[in-house]
Amino acid sequence: MEPRLSFVTLGVSDVGRSRKFYEALGFRASAASQAGVAFFDLGGIVLSVFGREALANDAGVPVSKPGFSGVSLAHNVNSEAEVDRILNEAQSAGGKLLKLGQKAFWGGYSGYFADPDGHLWEIAHNPFMPLDAKGRVTLPEPAP
Amino acid sequence: MEPRLSFVTLGVSDVGRSRKFYEALGFRASAASQAGVAFFDLGGIVLSVFGREALANDAGVPVSKPGFSGVSLAHNVNSEAEVDRILNEAQSAGGKLLKLGQKAFWGGYSGYFADPDGHLWEIAHNPFMPLDAKGRVTLPEPAP
Repeated sequence: MEPRLSFVTLGVSDVGRSRKFYEALGFRASAASQAGVAFFDLGGIVLSVFGREALANDAGVPVSKPGFSGVSLAHNVNSEAEVDRILNEAQSAGGKLLKLGQKAFWGGYSGYFADPDGHLWEIAHNPFMPLDAKGRVTLPEPAP
Repeated sequence: MEPRLSFVTLGVSDVGRSRKFYEALGFRASAASQAGVAFFDLGGIVLSVFGREALANDAGVPVSKPGFSGVSLAHNVNSEAEVDRILNEAQSAGGKLLKLGQKAFWGGYSGYFADPDGHLWEIAHNPFMPLDAKGRVTLPEPAP
């Protein structure tokens, strides 16, 4: 299997509400979006929002009550000030601030918000993993 | 907030086991990986595996029993045969086959497996969203 990721799909209770939330954050829904699903291009990877039950049914797994998903998405930026600014922006868009921007145990600076369904987003500044011109994280190569 | 995604972090019960699983699938762990976390470059986005409780603590949310996460990751490929091949590969690596490759309601072909912690992966062939030379999904532009 090639090291590639194509989609991250978030199961949500109301696709229209989630679409509006992510649009308020600055994402633009693809013309392929429909009533039951919305797609956002996040630089070569697609974020999609889709009904939570429909997602469980599609995967063939039982739905369970939403709780801690065990998954978080991170958006890395170039400064601590930008972390704070985006956390504010997310709150204004209707996100729930979970953790104010603060020094992180791994040496950087980060905070968290949750989207309307509780999906976790970390906004982070990591001075050890600089962003390239396209805003992509530069990860140290695998050991030879 | 710019439309970019930097990391997808999966909370897992045993980072070493998860690292081995993803290595068996063909991903290569970055030299930045440590005992408590592993990072895989998936074409400009980073997949990381990190302790499930540590992730909840970091986000400041209560841990709950693992159930349906409400999130799935998708890996798109160029043919139905490739979907079947990768689902087999995932099963050989210790993944749990959840759904055999089959015609999907959206017109393509896909199947699902779960990683050792139940995180969902869909392997999909979508003839309506062709892959570019780097294997990235080409999403129709937002409506003007």
